[in-house]
Amino acid sequence: MPKIKLIVEYDGSRFHGWQKQPGLRTVQSELEQTLSIVCRQPVGPLHAAGRTDAGVHARGQVVSFSVPEQPDLWRLAQGVSHLMKGEVSVLSAEIVHDSFHPGIDSTHKQYSYRILNRPAPAVLDTGRVWHISRPLNLDVMRTCAASLVGEHDFSSFRDSECCAKSPVKMIYLSELENHEGDLLVYRVIGSGFLKQMVRNIVGSLVDVGRGRLKVSSFAELLSKRDRRAAGVTAPAFALSMDWVSYDPLPENLAINPL
Amino acid sequence: MPKIKLIVEYDGSRFHGWQKQPGLRTVQSELEQTLSIVCRQPVGPLHAAGRTDAGVHARGQVVSFSVPEQPDLWRLAQGVSHLMKGEVSVLSAEIVHDSFHPGIDSTHKQYSYRILNRPAPAVLDTGRVWHISRPLNLDVMRTCAASLVGEHDFSSFRDSECCAKSPVKMIYLSELENHEGDLLVYRVIGSGFLKQMVRNIVGSLVDVGRGRLKVSSFAELLSKRDRRAAGVTAPAFALSMDWVSYDPLPENLAINPL
Repeated sequence: MPKIKLIVEYDGSRFHGWQKQPGLRTVQSELEQTLSIVCRQPVGPLHAAGRTDAGVHARGQVVSFSVPEQPDLWRLAQGVSHLMKGEVSVLSAEIVHDSFHPGIDSTHKQYSYRILNRPAPAVLDTGRVWHISRPLNLDVMRTCAASLVGEHDFSSFRDSECCAKSPVKMIYLSELENHEGDLLVYRVIGSGFLKQMVRNIVGSLVDVGRGRLKVSSFAELLSKRDRRAAGVTAPAFALSMDWVSYDPLPENLAINPL
Repeated sequence: MPKIKLIVEYDGSRFHGWQKQPGLRTVQSELEQTLSIVCRQPVGPLHAAGRTDAGVHARGQVVSFSVPEQPDLWRLAQGVSHLMKGEVSVLSAEIVHDSFHPGIDSTHKQYSYRILNRPAPAVLDTGRVWHISRPLNLDVMRTCAASLVGEHDFSSFRDSECCAKSPVKMIYLSELENHEGDLLVYRVIGSGFLKQMVRNIVGSLVDVGRGRLKVSSFAELLSKRDRRAAGVTAPAFALSMDWVSYDPLPENLAINPL
Protein backbone atom coordinates (compact mmCIF):
# COMPACT_ATOMS: atom_id res chain seq x y z
CA MET A 1 0.00 0.00 0.00
CA PRO A 2 1.39 3.44 -0.95
CA LYS A 3 2.23 5.63 1.99
CA ILE A 4 1.67 9.37 1.75
CA LYS A 5 3.38 12.12 3.72
CA LEU A 6 1.63 15.46 4.09
CA ILE A 7 2.83 18.76 5.54
CA VAL A 8 -0.16 20.58 6.99
CA GLU A 9 -0.94 23.95 8.57
CA TYR A 10 -3.85 24.19 11.00
CA ASP A 11 -5.60 26.65 13.24
CA GLY A 12 -5.50 25.07 16.69
CA SER A 13 -8.41 27.17 17.93
CA ARG A 14 -10.81 25.14 15.78
CA PHE A 15 -9.88 21.74 17.26
CA HIS A 16 -9.50 19.90 20.56
CA GLY A 17 -5.90 19.09 19.74
CA TRP A 18 -4.42 16.56 17.35
CA GLN A 19 -5.40 13.24 18.85
CA LYS A 20 -8.72 11.45 18.32
CA GLN A 21 -11.00 11.59 21.31
CA PRO A 22 -14.59 10.31 21.45
CA GLY A 23 -17.14 13.08 20.95
CA LEU A 24 -14.53 15.81 20.32
CA ARG A 25 -13.56 17.55 17.09
CA THR A 26 -9.83 16.88 16.67
CA VAL A 27 -7.42 17.41 13.77
CA GLN A 28 -6.76 13.68 13.46
CA SER A 29 -10.43 12.68 13.23
CA GLU A 30 -11.49 15.53 10.91
CA LEU A 31 -8.49 15.12 8.62
CA GLU A 32 -8.90 11.32 8.46
CA GLN A 33 -12.54 11.74 7.47
CA THR A 34 -11.75 14.39 4.85
CA LEU A 35 -8.92 12.28 3.38
CA SER A 36 -11.24 9.30 2.91
CA ILE A 37 -13.73 11.57 1.09
CA VAL A 38 -11.07 13.11 -1.16
CA CYS A 39 -9.31 9.78 -1.85
CA ARG A 40 -12.65 7.95 -2.32
CA GLN A 41 -11.20 4.98 -0.46
CA PRO A 42 -10.61 4.09 3.18
CA VAL A 43 -7.36 5.54 4.48
CA GLY A 44 -5.12 3.91 7.05
CA PRO A 45 -4.67 5.48 10.50
CA LEU A 46 -3.09 8.94 10.47
CA HIS A 47 0.19 9.37 12.29
CA ALA A 48 1.67 12.75 13.20
CA ALA A 49 5.14 14.05 14.05
CA GLY A 50 3.75 15.46 17.29
CA ARG A 51 0.40 15.32 19.06
CA THR A 52 -0.32 19.01 19.52
CA ASP A 53 -2.52 19.94 22.50
CA ALA A 54 -5.89 21.63 22.26
CA GLY A 55 -5.46 25.16 20.93
CA VAL A 56 -1.90 24.71 19.65
CA HIS A 57 -1.38 25.72 16.01
CA ALA A 58 0.75 24.07 13.35
CA ARG A 59 2.53 25.78 10.48
CA GLY A 60 4.27 22.59 9.40
CA GLN A 61 2.93 19.46 11.11
CA VAL A 62 3.90 16.27 9.28
CA VAL A 63 1.39 13.43 9.00
CA SER A 64 1.32 10.13 7.12
CA PHE A 65 -1.21 7.48 6.12
CA SER A 66 -1.60 4.51 3.77
CA VAL A 67 -4.12 4.09 0.97
CA PRO A 68 -4.95 1.01 -1.14
CA GLU A 69 -4.40 2.90 -4.41
CA GLN A 70 -2.20 5.89 -5.07
CA PRO A 71 -4.28 9.05 -5.52
CA ASP A 72 -3.34 12.14 -7.55
CA LEU A 73 -1.26 14.06 -5.01
CA TRP A 74 -2.02 17.54 -6.34
CA ARG A 75 -5.76 16.87 -6.29
CA LEU A 76 -5.49 15.35 -2.84
CA ALA A 77 -3.81 18.48 -1.45
CA GLN A 78 -6.19 20.86 -3.19
CA GLY A 79 -9.23 18.80 -2.21
CA VAL A 80 -8.41 18.61 1.49
CA SER A 81 -7.50 22.32 1.66
CA HIS A 82 -10.77 23.17 -0.07
CA LEU A 83 -12.97 21.02 2.17
CA MET A 84 -11.23 22.17 5.38
CA LYS A 85 -10.89 25.77 4.22
CA GLY A 86 -9.45 28.11 6.81
CA GLU A 87 -8.94 25.27 9.31
CA VAL A 88 -6.40 22.92 7.67
CA SER A 89 -4.30 23.49 4.54
CA VAL A 90 -2.13 20.84 2.89
CA LEU A 91 1.19 22.51 2.04
CA SER A 92 2.71 19.48 0.34
CA ALA A 93 2.00 15.82 -0.42
CA GLU A 94 4.45 13.12 -1.47
CA ILE A 95 4.85 9.35 -1.63
CA VAL A 96 7.24 7.98 0.98
CA HIS A 97 8.74 4.60 1.86
CA ASP A 98 6.14 2.42 3.56
CA SER A 99 8.24 2.20 6.73
CA PHE A 100 8.10 6.01 7.19
CA HIS A 101 6.74 7.25 10.53
CA PRO A 102 6.52 11.07 10.93
CA GLY A 103 7.26 10.99 14.65
CA ILE A 104 9.82 8.20 15.00
CA ASP A 105 11.84 9.19 11.92
CA SER A 106 12.09 12.91 12.66
CA THR A 107 15.55 14.15 13.62
CA HIS A 108 14.58 17.58 14.98
CA LYS A 109 11.70 20.02 14.96
CA GLN A 110 10.91 23.63 15.80
CA TYR A 111 8.20 25.19 17.93
CA SER A 112 7.70 28.91 18.35
CA TYR A 113 5.84 30.85 21.02
CA ARG A 114 4.65 34.43 20.48
CA ILE A 115 4.36 37.00 23.27
CA LEU A 116 2.99 40.52 22.80
CA ASN A 117 4.71 42.63 25.45
CA ARG A 118 3.06 46.05 25.65
CA PRO A 119 0.35 47.74 27.73
CA ALA A 120 -2.23 47.71 24.91
CA PRO A 121 -4.05 44.43 24.20
CA ALA A 122 -3.60 42.61 20.89
CA VAL A 123 -5.75 43.60 17.93
CA LEU A 124 -4.38 42.22 14.67
CA ASP A 125 -2.67 39.29 16.42
CA THR A 126 -5.56 38.35 18.74
CA GLY A 127 -5.64 34.61 19.39
CA ARG A 128 -2.06 34.18 18.14
CA VAL A 129 -0.09 35.86 20.94
CA TRP A 130 0.11 35.78 24.73
CA HIS A 131 -0.46 39.37 25.83
CA ILE A 132 1.73 40.44 28.76
CA SER A 133 1.19 44.08 29.62
CA ARG A 134 4.06 44.73 32.07
CA PRO A 135 7.57 45.08 30.60
CA LEU A 136 9.60 41.87 30.64
CA ASN A 137 13.33 41.81 31.30
CA LEU A 138 14.53 40.25 28.05
CA ASP A 139 18.18 39.96 29.06
CA VAL A 140 17.53 37.55 31.93
CA MET A 141 14.97 35.64 29.86
CA ARG A 142 17.58 35.19 27.11
CA THR A 143 20.16 33.92 29.57
CA CYS A 144 17.71 31.33 30.91
CA ALA A 145 16.52 30.33 27.44
CA ALA A 146 20.10 29.71 26.31
CA SER A 147 20.81 27.56 29.39
CA LEU A 148 18.38 24.92 28.09
CA VAL A 149 20.55 24.05 25.09
CA GLY A 150 22.04 20.57 25.42
CA GLU A 151 20.80 17.20 26.66
CA HIS A 152 18.71 17.50 29.82
CA ASP A 153 16.13 15.73 31.93
CA PHE A 154 13.04 17.91 31.41
CA SER A 155 10.87 16.35 34.14
CA SER A 156 10.32 19.79 35.69
CA PHE A 157 8.72 20.99 32.44
CA ARG A 158 6.71 17.84 31.80
CA ASP A 159 2.94 17.65 32.16
CA SER A 160 1.77 15.13 34.78
CA GLU A 161 -0.19 13.29 32.06
CA CYS A 162 2.85 12.90 29.82
CA CYS A 163 3.43 9.28 28.86
CA ALA A 164 6.80 9.57 27.09
CA LYS A 165 9.25 6.80 27.98
CA SER A 166 12.13 9.12 28.80
CA PRO A 167 12.13 12.73 30.08
CA VAL A 168 15.58 13.28 28.53
CA LYS A 169 15.55 15.46 25.41
CA MET A 170 18.20 17.20 23.36
CA ILE A 171 17.72 20.93 22.72
CA TYR A 172 19.71 22.43 19.84
CA LEU A 173 18.44 26.01 19.89
CA SER A 174 16.52 28.00 22.50
CA GLU A 175 16.28 31.72 21.74
CA LEU A 176 14.08 34.72 22.43
CA GLU A 177 13.86 37.13 19.50
CA ASN A 178 12.49 40.64 19.51
CA HIS A 179 10.34 41.38 16.43
CA GLU A 180 8.96 44.79 15.49
CA GLY A 181 9.33 46.24 18.94
CA ASP A 182 6.55 44.61 20.95
CA LEU A 183 6.49 41.07 19.60
CA LEU A 184 8.72 38.49 21.29
CA VAL A 185 9.18 35.10 19.67
CA TYR A 186 10.64 32.19 21.62
CA ARG A 187 12.06 29.62 19.17
CA VAL A 188 13.12 26.18 20.28
CA ILE A 189 14.57 23.36 18.20
CA GLY A 190 14.94 19.93 19.76
CA SER A 191 15.11 16.20 19.13
CA GLY A 192 11.64 15.90 20.62
CA PHE A 193 9.39 17.45 23.22
CA LEU A 194 7.43 16.19 26.23
CA LYS A 195 3.75 17.01 26.72
CA GLN A 196 3.35 20.76 27.40
CA MET A 197 7.14 21.10 27.64
CA VAL A 198 7.41 24.26 25.51
CA ARG A 199 4.47 25.96 27.25
CA ASN A 200 5.96 25.11 30.66
CA ILE A 201 9.35 26.46 29.63
CA VAL A 202 7.73 29.69 28.39
CA GLY A 203 5.76 30.02 31.62
CA SER A 204 8.96 29.87 33.66
CA LEU A 205 10.84 32.17 31.27
CA VAL A 206 8.08 34.75 31.68
CA ASP A 207 8.27 34.36 35.47
CA VAL A 208 11.96 35.21 35.18
CA GLY A 209 11.20 38.19 32.91
CA ARG A 210 8.63 39.45 35.42
CA GLY A 211 11.11 39.15 38.28
CA ARG A 212 9.09 36.44 40.03
CA LEU A 213 11.81 33.83 39.54
CA LYS A 214 15.54 34.41 39.83
CA VAL A 215 17.95 33.31 37.10
CA SER A 216 19.67 31.08 39.67
CA SER A 217 16.33 29.46 40.58
CA PHE A 218 15.56 28.87 36.89
CA ALA A 219 18.94 27.14 36.56
CA GLU A 220 17.99 24.81 39.41
CA LEU A 221 14.65 23.85 37.89
CA LEU A 222 16.10 21.16 35.61
CA SER A 223 17.98 19.45 38.44
CA LYS A 224 14.88 19.36 40.64
CA ARG A 225 13.06 17.09 38.14
CA ASP A 226 9.76 18.13 39.67
CA ARG A 227 6.92 19.80 37.73
CA ARG A 228 5.80 21.66 40.88
CA ALA A 229 9.12 23.53 40.95
CA ALA A 230 8.56 25.31 37.61
CA GLY A 231 6.16 28.16 36.76
CA VAL A 232 2.75 28.37 35.11
CA THR A 233 1.87 26.72 31.82
CA ALA A 234 1.74 29.41 29.12
CA PRO A 235 -1.54 29.49 27.12
CA ALA A 236 -1.81 27.15 24.13
CA PHE A 237 -3.07 29.63 21.50
CA ALA A 238 0.31 31.38 21.16
CA LEU A 239 2.24 28.18 20.43
CA SER A 240 2.91 26.83 16.94
CA MET A 241 4.65 23.72 15.65
CA ASP A 242 6.68 25.29 12.83
CA TRP A 243 8.41 22.44 11.04
CA VAL A 244 9.70 18.89 11.35
CA SER A 245 12.96 17.75 9.81
CA TYR A 246 14.03 14.29 8.68
CA ASP A 247 17.50 15.40 7.59
CA PRO A 248 20.71 15.14 9.56
CA LEU A 249 21.23 18.04 11.93
CA PRO A 250 22.79 21.04 10.14
CA GLU A 251 26.28 21.94 11.30
CA ASN A 252 25.29 25.23 12.89
CA LEU A 253 22.97 23.38 15.29
CA ALA A 254 25.29 20.49 16.12
CA ILE A 255 26.43 20.67 19.73
CA ASN A 256 28.40 18.34 21.94
CA PRO A 257 26.21 16.69 24.56
CA LEU A 258 27.53 17.52 28.02
CA MET B 1 -7.67 73.39 25.08
CA PRO B 2 -5.12 70.58 25.42
CA LYS B 3 -4.52 68.59 22.25
CA ILE B 4 -3.86 64.86 22.47
CA LYS B 5 -2.04 62.64 19.99
CA LEU B 6 -2.76 58.92 19.98
CA ILE B 7 -1.09 56.06 18.12
CA VAL B 8 -3.69 53.37 17.47
CA GLU B 9 -3.85 49.87 16.03
CA TYR B 10 -7.11 48.67 14.50
CA ASP B 11 -8.62 45.70 12.75
CA GLY B 12 -9.97 47.10 9.48
CA SER B 13 -12.34 44.17 9.01
CA ARG B 14 -14.53 45.51 11.83
CA PHE B 15 -15.10 48.96 10.30
CA HIS B 16 -16.21 50.69 7.12
CA GLY B 17 -12.92 52.54 6.93
CA TRP B 18 -11.67 55.52 8.91
CA GLN B 19 -13.96 58.33 7.88
CA LYS B 20 -17.37 59.08 9.40
CA GLN B 21 -20.27 58.14 7.17
CA PRO B 22 -23.95 58.31 8.07
CA GLY B 23 -25.31 54.94 9.17
CA LEU B 24 -21.95 53.13 8.92
CA ARG B 25 -19.67 51.90 11.67
CA THR B 26 -16.33 53.65 11.06
CA VAL B 27 -13.15 53.97 13.14
CA GLN B 28 -13.57 57.74 13.42
CA SER B 29 -17.14 57.61 14.71
CA GLU B 30 -16.61 54.70 17.11
CA LEU B 31 -13.36 56.08 18.48
CA GLU B 32 -14.81 59.58 18.92
CA GLN B 33 -17.74 58.14 20.87
CA THR B 34 -15.49 55.96 23.04
CA LEU B 35 -13.13 58.87 23.75
CA SER B 36 -15.99 61.05 24.99
CA ILE B 37 -17.08 58.22 27.33
CA VAL B 38 -13.57 57.64 28.67
CA CYS B 39 -12.75 61.37 29.00
CA ARG B 40 -16.21 62.15 30.44
CA GLN B 41 -16.28 65.33 28.40
CA PRO B 42 -17.05 66.21 24.78
CA VAL B 43 -13.99 65.71 22.56
CA GLY B 44 -13.15 67.83 19.54
CA PRO B 45 -13.24 66.32 16.04
CA LEU B 46 -10.78 63.50 15.45
CA HIS B 47 -8.15 63.97 12.78
CA ALA B 48 -6.05 61.14 11.35
CA ALA B 49 -2.75 60.88 9.51
CA GLY B 50 -4.50 58.95 6.73
CA ARG B 51 -8.11 58.05 5.98
CA THR B 52 -7.80 54.29 5.57
CA ASP B 53 -10.36 52.62 3.29
CA ALA B 54 -12.89 50.04 4.39
CA GLY B 55 -11.07 46.84 5.40
CA VAL B 56 -7.60 48.36 5.64
CA HIS B 57 -5.81 47.71 8.96
CA ALA B 58 -3.60 50.04 10.98
CA ARG B 59 -0.68 49.05 13.15
CA GLY B 60 0.27 52.65 13.85
CA GLN B 61 -2.35 55.17 12.72
CA VAL B 62 -1.90 58.60 14.33
CA VAL B 63 -4.94 60.59 15.43
CA SER B 64 -5.46 63.81 17.38
CA PHE B 65 -8.28 65.64 19.16
CA SER B 66 -8.84 68.44 21.66
CA VAL B 67 -10.49 68.23 25.07
CA PRO B 68 -11.55 71.02 27.48
CA GLU B 69 -9.59 69.50 30.37
CA GLN B 70 -6.52 67.34 30.25
CA PRO B 71 -7.36 63.72 31.14
CA ASP B 72 -5.02 61.14 32.69
CA LEU B 73 -3.28 59.80 29.58
CA TRP B 74 -2.57 56.30 30.92
CA ARG B 75 -6.21 55.84 31.96
CA LEU B 76 -7.36 57.22 28.62
CA ALA B 77 -5.28 54.67 26.68
CA GLN B 78 -6.27 51.77 28.92
CA GLY B 79 -9.93 52.79 28.93
CA VAL B 80 -10.27 53.05 25.16
CA SER B 81 -8.38 49.77 24.57
CA HIS B 82 -10.63 48.07 27.12
CA LEU B 83 -13.91 49.37 25.68
CA MET B 84 -12.88 48.63 22.08
CA LYS B 85 -11.16 45.36 22.93
CA GLY B 86 -9.90 43.44 19.93
CA GLU B 87 -10.96 46.21 17.51
CA VAL B 88 -8.89 49.26 18.47
CA SER B 89 -5.92 49.48 20.85
CA VAL B 90 -4.26 52.72 21.94
CA LEU B 91 -0.50 52.16 21.76
CA SER B 92 0.47 55.58 23.11
CA ALA B 93 -1.06 58.89 24.19
CA GLU B 94 0.68 62.24 24.64
CA ILE B 95 -0.03 65.97 24.85
CA VAL B 96 1.04 67.86 21.73
CA HIS B 97 1.16 71.48 20.61
CA ASP B 98 -2.34 72.75 19.80
CA SER B 99 -1.38 73.41 16.18
CA PHE B 100 -0.52 69.72 15.60
CA HIS B 101 -2.30 67.99 12.71
CA PRO B 102 -1.49 64.27 12.24
CA GLY B 103 -1.88 64.40 8.47
CA ILE B 104 -0.47 67.79 7.52
CA ASP B 105 2.52 67.60 9.89
CA SER B 106 3.67 64.08 8.95
CA THR B 107 6.91 63.87 7.00
CA HIS B 108 6.66 60.24 5.84
CA LYS B 109 4.74 57.06 6.54
CA GLN B 110 4.85 53.35 5.80
CA TYR B 111 2.25 50.96 4.45
CA SER B 112 2.76 47.25 4.02
CA TYR B 113 0.90 44.73 1.91
CA ARG B 114 1.02 40.99 2.60
CA ILE B 115 0.74 38.33 -0.10
CA LEU B 116 0.66 34.57 0.59
CA ASN B 117 2.11 32.97 -2.54
CA ARG B 118 1.57 29.20 -2.43
CA PRO B 119 -0.99 26.70 -3.74
CA ALA B 120 -2.58 26.09 -0.30
CA PRO B 121 -4.99 28.72 1.03
CA ALA B 122 -4.20 30.73 4.16
CA VAL B 123 -5.05 29.27 7.55
CA LEU B 124 -3.29 31.14 10.36
CA ASP B 125 -3.10 34.37 8.33
CA THR B 126 -6.65 34.32 6.95
CA GLY B 127 -8.01 37.83 6.52
CA ARG B 128 -4.53 39.35 6.74
CA VAL B 129 -3.01 38.20 3.43
CA TRP B 130 -3.91 38.17 -0.26
CA HIS B 131 -3.68 34.54 -1.32
CA ILE B 132 -2.18 34.04 -4.79
CA SER B 133 -1.85 30.35 -5.62
CA ARG B 134 0.28 30.48 -8.79
CA PRO B 135 3.99 31.25 -8.39
CA LEU B 136 4.90 34.91 -8.85
CA ASN B 137 8.10 36.05 -10.54
CA LEU B 138 9.63 38.03 -7.69
CA ASP B 139 12.61 39.34 -9.65
CA VAL B 140 10.49 41.31 -12.11
CA MET B 141 8.17 42.48 -9.33
CA ARG B 142 11.18 43.81 -7.40
CA THR B 143 12.49 45.66 -10.45
CA CYS B 144 9.11 47.35 -10.93
CA ALA B 145 8.70 48.12 -7.22
CA ALA B 146 12.11 49.82 -7.12
CA SER B 147 11.25 51.93 -10.17
CA LEU B 148 8.62 53.81 -8.15
CA VAL B 149 11.18 55.40 -5.82
CA GLY B 150 11.42 59.14 -6.40
CA GLU B 151 8.94 61.95 -7.08
CA HIS B 152 6.23 60.92 -9.54
CA ASP B 153 2.76 61.75 -10.76
CA PHE B 154 0.74 58.77 -9.50
CA SER B 155 -2.47 59.50 -11.44
CA SER B 156 -2.38 55.99 -12.92
CA PHE B 157 -2.58 54.50 -9.43
CA ARG B 158 -5.17 56.94 -8.11
CA ASP B 159 -8.78 56.00 -7.40
CA SER B 160 -11.33 57.95 -9.47
CA GLU B 161 -12.89 59.24 -6.23
CA CYS B 162 -9.60 60.60 -4.90
CA CYS B 163 -9.87 64.27 -4.00
CA ALA B 164 -6.20 65.06 -3.25
CA LYS B 165 -5.04 68.39 -4.68
CA SER B 166 -1.96 66.98 -6.36
CA PRO B 167 -1.24 63.51 -7.74
CA VAL B 168 2.50 64.06 -7.26
CA LYS B 169 3.99 62.10 -4.36
CA MET B 170 7.50 61.32 -3.19
CA ILE B 171 8.35 57.64 -2.62
CA TYR B 172 11.41 56.91 -0.48
CA LEU B 173 11.28 53.12 -0.32
CA SER B 174 9.41 50.53 -2.38
CA GLU B 175 10.49 46.95 -1.75
CA LEU B 176 9.18 43.41 -1.92
CA GLU B 177 10.51 41.17 0.86
CA ASN B 178 10.29 37.42 1.09
CA HIS B 179 9.38 36.23 4.59
CA GLU B 180 9.41 32.61 5.73
CA GLY B 181 9.21 31.17 2.27
CA ASP B 182 5.64 31.82 1.18
CA LEU B 183 4.91 35.24 2.65
CA LEU B 184 5.71 38.28 0.51
CA VAL B 185 5.58 41.71 2.08
CA TYR B 186 5.51 44.85 -0.08
CA ARG B 187 6.73 47.83 1.98
CA VAL B 188 6.38 51.37 0.77
CA ILE B 189 7.45 54.60 2.49
CA GLY B 190 6.34 57.91 1.04
CA SER B 191 5.57 61.54 1.75
CA GLY B 192 1.90 60.75 1.31
CA PHE B 193 -0.43 58.48 -0.62
CA LEU B 194 -3.44 58.98 -2.89
CA LYS B 195 -6.70 57.08 -2.38
CA GLN B 196 -6.12 53.35 -3.08
CA MET B 197 -2.65 54.14 -4.40
CA VAL B 198 -0.87 51.30 -2.55
CA ARG B 199 -3.54 48.75 -3.49
CA ASN B 200 -3.39 49.84 -7.13
CA ILE B 201 0.40 49.60 -7.14
CA VAL B 202 0.22 46.09 -5.64
CA GLY B 203 -2.40 45.04 -8.20
CA SER B 204 -0.08 46.04 -11.05
CA LEU B 205 2.99 44.51 -9.39
CA VAL B 206 1.10 41.21 -9.12
CA ASP B 207 0.10 41.48 -12.79
CA VAL B 208 3.81 41.76 -13.57
CA GLY B 209 4.64 38.81 -11.32
CA ARG B 210 1.95 36.74 -13.06
CA GLY B 211 3.32 37.63 -16.47
CA ARG B 212 0.18 39.54 -17.48
CA LEU B 213 2.01 42.86 -17.65
CA LYS B 214 5.52 43.42 -19.00
CA VAL B 215 8.17 45.26 -17.02
CA SER B 216 8.36 47.78 -19.86
CA SER B 217 4.59 48.31 -19.72
CA PHE B 218 4.74 48.81 -15.95
CA ALA B 219 7.41 51.47 -16.49
CA GLU B 220 5.08 53.30 -18.87
CA LEU B 221 2.15 53.31 -16.44
CA LEU B 222 3.32 56.40 -14.54
CA SER B 223 3.74 58.47 -17.68
CA LYS B 224 0.25 57.54 -18.92
CA ARG B 225 -1.36 59.26 -15.92
CA ASP B 226 -4.49 57.23 -16.51
CA ARG B 227 -6.06 54.88 -13.92
CA ARG B 228 -7.42 52.65 -16.72
CA ALA B 229 -3.86 51.85 -17.80
CA ALA B 230 -2.92 50.11 -14.53
CA GLY B 231 -4.01 46.73 -13.17
CA VAL B 232 -6.60 45.59 -10.64
CA THR B 233 -6.97 47.04 -7.16
CA ALA B 234 -5.54 44.55 -4.66
CA PRO B 235 -7.95 43.59 -1.84
CA ALA B 236 -8.06 45.88 1.22
CA PHE B 237 -7.73 43.26 3.98
CA ALA B 238 -4.02 42.59 3.29
CA LEU B 239 -3.00 46.25 3.60
CA SER B 240 -1.82 47.88 6.80
CA MET B 241 -0.79 51.43 7.69
CA ASP B 242 2.30 50.66 9.76
CA TRP B 243 3.55 53.96 11.12
CA VAL B 244 3.60 57.72 10.61
CA SER B 245 6.67 59.83 11.23
CA TYR B 246 6.95 63.52 12.16
CA ASP B 247 10.73 63.51 12.20
CA PRO B 248 13.05 64.63 9.40
CA LEU B 249 13.72 61.90 6.87
CA PRO B 250 16.51 59.57 8.02
CA GLU B 251 19.66 59.70 5.89
CA ASN B 252 19.27 56.20 4.50
CA LEU B 253 15.93 57.18 2.93
CA ALA B 254 16.97 60.58 1.62
CA ILE B 255 17.08 60.60 -2.17
CA ASN B 256 17.53 63.32 -4.71
CA PRO B 257 14.29 64.15 -6.51
CA LEU B 258 14.75 63.63 -10.22
